[in-house]
Amino acid sequence: MSDDALTELTRRAQNLDAEHAGTDRRDAFELPDGVIYLDGNSLGALSVAAREATRDAVERQWGKQLIRAWNESAWWTAPERVGDRIAALLGAPGGSVVVGDSTTVSLYKAVHAAARLRPNRRVVLTDPDSFPTDVHVTRGVCEQLGLTLELVSPGEAVTRLQGSNDVALAAYSHVDYRTGELWDLAAITAAAHDAGALACWDLCHSAGVVEVGLADGGADFAVGCGYKYLSGGPGAPAFLYVAPEHLSEFTNPILGWNGHATPFAMSPDHVPAEGITRARVGTPPVLGIAALEGALTAYDGLSVSDVRRRSLSLTGFFVECLDGLGIDLPVVTPRDDRRGSQVSLRHPDAYAVVQALIARGVIGDFREPDIVRLGFAPLYLSHEDVLAAAVHVRDVITGREFEREEFRSRATVT
Amino acid sequence: MSDDALTELTRRAQNLDAEHAGTDRRDAFELPDGVIYLDGNSLGALSVAAREATRDAVERQWGKQLIRAWNESAWWTAPERVGDRIAALLGAPGGSVVVGDSTTVSLYKAVHAAARLRPNRRVVLTDPDSFPTDVHVTRGVCEQLGLTLELVSPGEAVTRLQGSNDVALAAYSHVDYRTGELWDLAAITAAAHDAGALACWDLCHSAGVVEVGLADGGADFAVGCGYKYLSGGPGAPAFLYVAPEHLSEFTNPILGWNGHATPFAMSPDHVPAEGITRARVGTPPVLGIAALEGALTAYDGLSVSDVRRRSLSLTGFFVECLDGLGIDLPVVTPRDDRRGSQVSLRHPDAYAVVQALIARGVIGDFREPDIVRLGFAPLYLSHEDVLAAAVHVRDVITGREFEREEFRSRATVT
Repeated sequence: MSDDALTELTRRAQNLDAEHAGTDRRDAFELPDGVIYLDGNSLGALSVAAREATRDAVERQWGKQLIRAWNESAWWTAPERVGDRIAALLGAPGGSVVVGDSTTVSLYKAVHAAARLRPNRRVVLTDPDSFPTDVHVTRGVCEQLGLTLELVSPGEAVTRLQGSNDVALAAYSHVDYRTGELWDLAAITAAAHDAGALACWDLCHSAGVVEVGLADGGADFAVGCGYKYLSGGPGAPAFLYVAPEHLSEFTNPILGWNGHATPFAMSPDHVPAEGITRARVGTPPVLGIAALEGALTAYDGLSVSDVRRRSLSLTGFFVECLDGLGIDLPVVTPRDDRRGSQVSLRHPDAYAVVQALIARGVIGDFREPDIVRLGFAPLYLSHEDVLAAAVHVRDVITGREFEREEFRSRATVT
Repeated sequence: MSDDALTELTRRAQNLDAEHAGTDRRDAFELPDGVIYLDGNSLGALSVAAREATRDAVERQWGKQLIRAWNESAWWTAPERVGDRIAALLGAPGGSVVVGDSTTVSLYKAVHAAARLRPNRRVVLTDPDSFPTDVHVTRGVCEQLGLTLELVSPGEAVTRLQGSNDVALAAYSHVDYRTGELWDLAAITAAAHDAGALACWDLCHSAGVVEVGLADGGADFAVGCGYKYLSGGPGAPAFLYVAPEHLSEFTNPILGWNGHATPFAMSPDHVPAEGITRARVGTPPVLGIAALEGALTAYDGLSVSDVRRRSLSLTGFFVECLDGLGIDLPVVTPRDDRRGSQVSLRHPDAYAVVQALIARGVIGDFREPDIVRLGFAPLYLSHEDVLAAAVHVRDVITGREFEREEFRSRATVT
């Protein structure tokens, strides 16, 4: 690597930042000084709006309005209202998305309900390399309903589905949490439909950064988390999408009062609410929803396609920097556009590499067994940040900092 | 009612407040001026500690520590840590309670797991007058598992259980949400055990105000909400108790990565964690847990038995005030100690009575069909508050304020 290369990359970063200035929302977020945050795909950063929304929910709404806030601050309808905001980011119509519960619980509802819509089919497909909770949930539902879980990678799903008549549901992640590979939602969904099956998508790593196109792609169900690129805060409520054509037949496996047609009639008979409200279960987590609702205002005035262009530019430029700086690490993430908003590198000492980067203020994460996972939340990262991060990666690798003892002890959980 | 009666009640209120000064935590809470808050059994008031804990979780932990907060601020272990604090209030050992998910989802887990521990029994008992979500959940689980739901009031549960051999589970509420009646947890649990059945308790209206005695009473499972007397904030995470002797056989119906023995190994095989951790499902709602953890510090230095004595004194004194002020309304709540921390009155225009009281700053709630429900959160209410509330009730009733049109329109949801 020559000084010339760095100079050239710096100029290029500046040009790209100018080109993408319209999608720069850095000022909306509160990142600590000295940090290049490449973990927005695990926990999105705090925004000013999320901070203020949470404070208002706690101090004014809860503190002053007390119980009246259910009406006066419209807490009761927040799951659908925030759901509508997320729907707009997913290419889904209003009234098809609701928030509340964790991603895992949301996925349980979706998989259970989907399987019941195909009562004569005995097989559920999922990816063995999905985030583990996806495999656990689908396996658990299969055991409860007497179905067979078949582990088929998304790359082989279309082939498996073609000409088959035994599959009830294909449950896949849109973006692989480890490699960052983006799968073809529309193609797998179409193959599922051709085979008489349904398709459920986990959008944890695509919501807010990829043009998901749920309605155009024909997805039947989808779930995703509020705390990654959507920046809704730690453990933020997840979202659940049910395609409008399935709403009237959607059977919630967890029957609670919030999914009831007339919850305050206090009737012991369960009559499901109309529309997506029937996917609700218990009292919504108001503080978490408030933070998420505030965070979503970062998308005001932006189109997802512009955010996606910025994301591809950031991740593409990061790989360009690795190449330009002469860093010879295997890039696991596709170099073409079949990727989410992350770049994953393979390294035999990946855990220690991540720790060494964190010590330098470049926060990414490690994923088993050997993945350095770097997420590029497009709203608050610049191409200059990307270049700076690449320089730190170079220095950690070429300086063999990952060999230091302090970076090798695995005391942490994430 | 004579001025003498009011003078005498005022003196009595002052004496009782002096007697119970040791359990007065009014200064720990931030109640708005001009409000007598009798709805802490629906949404507990904001405390200074809950406000500060939430602000710290948002601004310092999330904002500054970012992803590192999972370790540095011990987010990962918060469900068990806060569970232990609640366990202490319930007479349960450490390691038997976990928080996260809604009450409804928690109950779903408990009922499902309990039924699976009695595979040869076909009947689940619950109270037809339980809070509706309890009936919905038990019915839903019964449908999924091919069991029969039998609606038996708690007053008849012991008789139903005696000599029976078909019951898998008796699922009851400790305190009736409408009438405030306190049921005998130990007696119903013992009858269930004598019949070879298990007992699951909903503690939503007893946690924090009644000496629950989960371990002494032999309860097998219990759930309860964090946002009533525990004052954890709107939609606060609920808690789930599993008796230690059932932990090794507890099967979570919703298999998620947070209940896994080694979540970060990212294994597709589900190996349940040891202990109560296996009852976890998805990523915990950190902001809600933070508020709840802060709120629970209001109990620091207090014994539940002292809080219970204060609660009985407040509710007993309220009935005494009604009598002393000549208010002739049916008191639905037991006048003896078989009550929680509320007093429910019956009135044909109960909805309008509640609205008229709210207009006077006395916030209670209405419950179908004709119940004026007044909750007495013992930590922040005084006997003087109780007397003032009773005077307002008298004025609403004797002045027939409830007949005003403005109080009769049912626009609100809670």
